[in-house]
Amino acid sequence: MTIKGNLIVGQSGGPTTVINGSLAGVIAEAKNHEKIQKIYGMQHGIEGLLKKNFLDLTDCSLNIINGLRVTPASALGGCRYKVKDDDYSQILEILKEKNIRYFFYIGGNDSMDTCNKISILAEKEGYEMQVLGIPKTIDNDLPITDHCPGFGSAARFTAISTASAGKDLEAMKSFDDVAINEIMGRHAGWLAAASVLAKNDFKDAPHLVYLPERAFSVEKFLEDVKSIHKELGYVFVSIGEGIKNSSGEFIGENQAETVVDAFGHKAIALGNGPASYLSKTIKENLGLQARYSRCGTIQRSFSECVSNIDYEEAYLVGVTAVKHAAEGKTGLMITLERTSNDPYKCCAGAVSLSKVANVEHFVPKEYINQQGNFVTQEFFTYCLPLAGKNIPKYVRLV
Amino acid sequence: MTIKGNLIVGQSGGPTTVINGSLAGVIAEAKNHEKIQKIYGMQHGIEGLLKKNFLDLTDCSLNIINGLRVTPASALGGCRYKVKDDDYSQILEILKEKNIRYFFYIGGNDSMDTCNKISILAEKEGYEMQVLGIPKTIDNDLPITDHCPGFGSAARFTAISTASAGKDLEAMKSFDDVAINEIMGRHAGWLAAASVLAKNDFKDAPHLVYLPERAFSVEKFLEDVKSIHKELGYVFVSIGEGIKNSSGEFIGENQAETVVDAFGHKAIALGNGPASYLSKTIKENLGLQARYSRCGTIQRSFSECVSNIDYEEAYLVGVTAVKHAAEGKTGLMITLERTSNDPYKCCAGAVSLSKVANVEHFVPKEYINQQGNFVTQEFFTYCLPLAGKNIPKYVRLV
Repeated sequence: MTIKGNLIVGQSGGPTTVINGSLAGVIAEAKNHEKIQKIYGMQHGIEGLLKKNFLDLTDCSLNIINGLRVTPASALGGCRYKVKDDDYSQILEILKEKNIRYFFYIGGNDSMDTCNKISILAEKEGYEMQVLGIPKTIDNDLPITDHCPGFGSAARFTAISTASAGKDLEAMKSFDDVAINEIMGRHAGWLAAASVLAKNDFKDAPHLVYLPERAFSVEKFLEDVKSIHKELGYVFVSIGEGIKNSSGEFIGENQAETVVDAFGHKAIALGNGPASYLSKTIKENLGLQARYSRCGTIQRSFSECVSNIDYEEAYLVGVTAVKHAAEGKTGLMITLERTSNDPYKCCAGAVSLSKVANVEHFVPKEYINQQGNFVTQEFFTYCLPLAGKNIPKYVRLV
Repeated sequence: MTIKGNLIVGQSGGPTTVINGSLAGVIAEAKNHEKIQKIYGMQHGIEGLLKKNFLDLTDCSLNIINGLRVTPASALGGCRYKVKDDDYSQILEILKEKNIRYFFYIGGNDSMDTCNKISILAEKEGYEMQVLGIPKTIDNDLPITDHCPGFGSAARFTAISTASAGKDLEAMKSFDDVAINEIMGRHAGWLAAASVLAKNDFKDAPHLVYLPERAFSVEKFLEDVKSIHKELGYVFVSIGEGIKNSSGEFIGENQAETVVDAFGHKAIALGNGPASYLSKTIKENLGLQARYSRCGTIQRSFSECVSNIDYEEAYLVGVTAVKHAAEGKTGLMITLERTSNDPYKCCAGAVSLSKVANVEHFVPKEYINQQGNFVTQEFFTYCLPLAGKNIPKYVRLV
């Protein structure tokens, strides 16, 4: 059904804590198939392929494969190169030249589009090659799949860091009033929403959650903060980095600030992110002390906080992609299909690449409360298993 | 040697991930001594004592004690109240009223001063009470003790988050150039220095480390960044939040709203901090893409990243304080004394409170390299065991 030839695998977009688990799955499973000869890695995704920057992974040891599973961020290098229409014929030429018959691309929406176009072109030109997309994104915004590898571990980090820093704020409530945590997700708010997962009590953080899916009103936000502060004496707020006002402008982006450069020249710079902006706004308008945190890429890479579910599933989608390819399937992205929620059970499936390419899956209405300042119980039910076992439960003396 | 009476314990200053471990140690050990009758907790430290806000912990279950050991931040509430000279006689009156004969205060420099003054006053007035300080600070800036409970876990978080985010930056090096991580430590740079602990290779993060102990030059910094970027194509920078220029001004202070706390310390909590400022400066002066992260209180509370050494020692200092008190010792702060580095061995000792009160222990010269942009091998040797076992070692394909 398939022909003998070489395999290539690439990693695209921003890294995750477990993206190398999918790479490990591809390499490990490829070794089980005689028709797969050489195993190549593209360095820095499709851009590396265009530059013919390959790594030969054929003789990768079990030690390296296991090591990859606990090494965060894309070991082959990530990529944000937007493939041009002209590039595709060149990509196919290079693949033919290397006798690549098995093509795997680990990535998000854009990468699935790239994958889809390569698959279509290969078929059109009668070049036999199995092309499979392997899902990866902390943003959890790929459609059809129940969730995306990478998201669960980032969700776990966000949940535990919020609960922990919430205890810190509560302990210091006579001195600090408000803490704002800025969480990744430029368009989709899945990760900011996941900050609730270790909350067990109204006193626990977060008290307010704002996602990019809802227009953000600074006035309404200040009212919300004031109200919780009155009740508890402290307020912990989770915000998606991509929150926008009703005109679609990012919050804090047009806040001009004076910067003094190395030579003492004053300059105007824009945008420190919404958390920095909102912490100032709180101080100015409510007279409350406000801290902010912004873990940046730490939230998508922190290797001591991995969801056991995510760890297993990232490997599973890599393995499954190779199995499907070996069976002659092509033009697919591997999906995760939840078959039971309690106990959590999930298996790997597949969907046509054309159905996922460039489609973004946002947090749906039923997961956001009516006021747009928290999530619903349905979201908890959906998300909690993904963050893995042993989500901490802290004790409380007061 | 000691007389029958009640015990009181308080937590002061900013929280740590393991400060409740010391509280658990005090409660658990107190139950072993018949002369100790009631066990009280002050809510929000000495301020709570002055307001007579007490919790009765006498019947604390083993479940709660064990739960405290894995619950971050001060379960009794933290405190930043600067005790006034007039307050001390009132404090002693309240302690007499509650028949407190065993007084324990878990905190840093300022708290040890408070403790010392209470001890001196009690003795002067002939009121028999054992007064003991229990060290706690992520800043690691208490003198005499080898290190401070709370520091090891924060050091572990800083080390692993830096190594993880460094892998992320390296993976994205064609797209991102510089990442700056702002690390807690207003005066002492111990925690920023600890960001190096998971570095195994020149390519690994961090490449540059700047501590508040050395005057910071923006021009020199830009040269350093440019030079590493030329060599590697990416640069990861760790900076202590309290870095200052040669005039003693906080870097980025023109942007930050500097806050002065009850002790007259300048805090950066409300401003944008140096990382935000320096990332802009890099863009403007070097034309490089620069991200910044700032984990804020997450770095001192993240409960999924605890050093096993710190976990044990935080409990040990609590237990030891009670043992010393039961033996009639008073006016002491418990210390940690390292007896061997490889294998790491450490035991608890004690020092007169008068020797530690208000003394800050900075990162010494021999731990900072000559250029003032990294740490020395001696620092690694000192610090590595404190961050606990299983510091990750990642694999590398390139």
